Amino acid sequence: MSEMKSENVITCRIPLRWGDMDAYGHVNNVEVVRILEEARVHTFGAPAGTGMPGSTPPVPLFSTVPDGDQTLVVEHRVRYAAPLEYRNVPVIVEVWVSSLKAATLELNYRVRDGVTEQECLKASTVLAFVSGETGRVRRVSPEQRALIEPLVGSSVFGPGAP
Amino acid sequence: MSEMKSENVITCRIPLRWGDMDAYGHVNNVEVVRILEEARVHTFGAPAGTGMPGSTPPVPLFSTVPDGDQTLVVEHRVRYAAPLEYRNVPVIVEVWVSSLKAATLELNYRVRDGVTEQECLKASTVLAFVSGETGRVRRVSPEQRALIEPLVGSSVFGPGAP
Amino acid sequence: MSEMKSENVITCRIPLRWGDMDAYGHVNNVEVVRILEEARVHTFGAPAGTGMPGSTPPVPLFSTVPDGDQTLVVEHRVRYAAPLEYRNVPVIVEVWVSSLKAATLELNYRVRDGVTEQECLKASTVLAFVSGETGRVRRVSPEQRALIEPLVGSSVFGPGAP
Amino acid sequence: MSEMKSENVITCRIPLRWGDMDAYGHVNNVEVVRILEEARVHTFGAPAGTGMPGSTPPVPLFSTVPDGDQTLVVEHRVRYAAPLEYRNVPVIVEVWVSSLKAATLELNYRVRDGVTEQECLKASTVLAFVSGETGRVRRVSPEQRALIEPLVGSSVFGPGAP
Repeated sequence: MSEMKSENVITCRIPLRWGDMDAYGHVNNVEVVRILEEARVHTFGAPAGTGMPGSTPPVPLFSTVPDGDQTLVVEHRVRYAAPLEYRNVPVIVEVWVSSLKAATLELNYRVRDGVTEQECLKASTVLAFVSGETGRVRRVSPEQRALIEPLVGSSVFGPGAP
Repeated sequence: MSEMKSENVITCRIPLRWGDMDAYGHVNNVEVVRILEEARVHTFGAPAGTGMPGSTPPVPLFSTVPDGDQTLVVEHRVRYAAPLEYRNVPVIVEVWVSSLKAATLELNYRVRDGVTEQECLKASTVLAFVSGETGRVRRVSPEQRALIEPLVGSSVFGPGAP
Repeated sequence: MSEMKSENVITCRIPLRWGDMDAYGHVNNVEVVRILEEARVHTFGAPAGTGMPGSTPPVPLFSTVPDGDQTLVVEHRVRYAAPLEYRNVPVIVEVWVSSLKAATLELNYRVRDGVTEQECLKASTVLAFVSGETGRVRRVSPEQRALIEPLVGSSVFGPGAP
Repeated sequence: MSEMKSENVITCRIPLRWGDMDAYGHVNNVEVVRILEEARVHTFGAPAGTGMPGSTPPVPLFSTVPDGDQTLVVEHRVRYAAPLEYRNVPVIVEVWVSSLKAATLELNYRVRDGVTEQECLKASTVLAFVSGETGRVRRVSPEQRALIEPLVGSSVFGPGAP
């Protein structure tokens, strides 16, 4: 694993796969959303109840989710500044939290080329913790809030954001 | 192919794949963005210069793009109302255009369960036509404008949108 | 769904996705294995315990698997005669059974271009039904045997096979 | 990059992605073939003419392919000993060459769990270098032969292979 925590931002290095390219020869925009998923897993760990044990992530948020509950994507937003090119060098993804509400949190990301460090895109994801049985949204717990709060920063899509 | 044109909306039926499910047992949110890509290809055809000839799409927009140019995603937005469940029955995707500018167009989508017809998510994509050589954005041509204009409707994320 | 049963062969039409192409501009060899998975699901249905109800497949084998058991791939073999090209026209996949043993069955496939009908590849998959709890292989039940036997034919990789 | 060369075997550590799991909760068999593709790219580099420059692979075979030619999969074989489980720890893939002929080479792989080091599967791929223009197979060049020969070992599917 390769994450670095600095102030309120987690910096992940996510390896690309050759198959992430499409017939245009760039990293396909769908696979970019997969890279955001990987950045979440690098940062917060694999969702509870999935996969087998591995290494501890920098912010073990997803393991706080009770058995049977799920961490679901409510909203995604992605805006490109430039196509993301494939290299056999990991891309750099900065992850932080732009908003923490009673029952949801919003993640923000910047994705940079692993060699030139050019910013290719910024993105956001709203997550909710949902009961697997009833489908109802759970309130963010105090334990979760304590893990998330150190990551709270400003919005990548907010007014004045570069 | 299975598209229906009604007023300014193209309705596509996009087959799911069993592998679209993730370890949570729903259609993975990344594969949902793949389904939006498929809805674009069902509606506008395969991008010029990729793949081999097949059937004619309802609005052959992408074949108007000159050789060497590319149709690129500038922005994506997806908002879920409910998880999308896997069935061996295609999902229903409605596609229209919410905005047509000098050099970009914004597509809107609603994705419904193929059996219950429940709306699971709505989404938008901003597309630009880009020179493969210089990377510069091309103006929407009169020919393209004539194809797009009959699809222009209101914004799925606009004020008052359900 | 679009399958046709003729003698001991099920013929499926599996839609490609634009994203199945890789940077070479052909359908990527990994996605070809996804298409074989889809041909199994078209033929035998979605594995029990996954997804939500849909249409009935031609040979509802996978729904005979008891709750908690899994249908697992033991072996795959794929041999290309020509690259598979992307078209917005489904590929033709013929599926049959080349071998039925006490605890495994071997599927065979031929994959043809949806327009030219050229055979691009042939393949085989050995499947086993496995207890989700113990990981032990289950014997093929009489009910399963009755569903599979009408599909038994000769081996696509056997001596004298074209 | 994380490869180690020892005698005639290259050992790669390939990160899994959370989305590699399917609804059964294991790494999906299709994604296993993607991991083999990644092991080829880790070992031999990205195919010439695709992607942008990155780090030099241990055996820079694919960059010897002339512009416009393609390195194509002719045959795949995969045999499981156990399901591959998802962890946020890379899997271990050993890669070597089991056969080098006039116009093709056969790669062999063993894939091991990144934590337990249990062997989950072995596999082989026959590759050919093909003219992009004519589709005809190219002879393996002396330069390519010099790169490949140090990797030649015994066959993972041969008689007496464990």
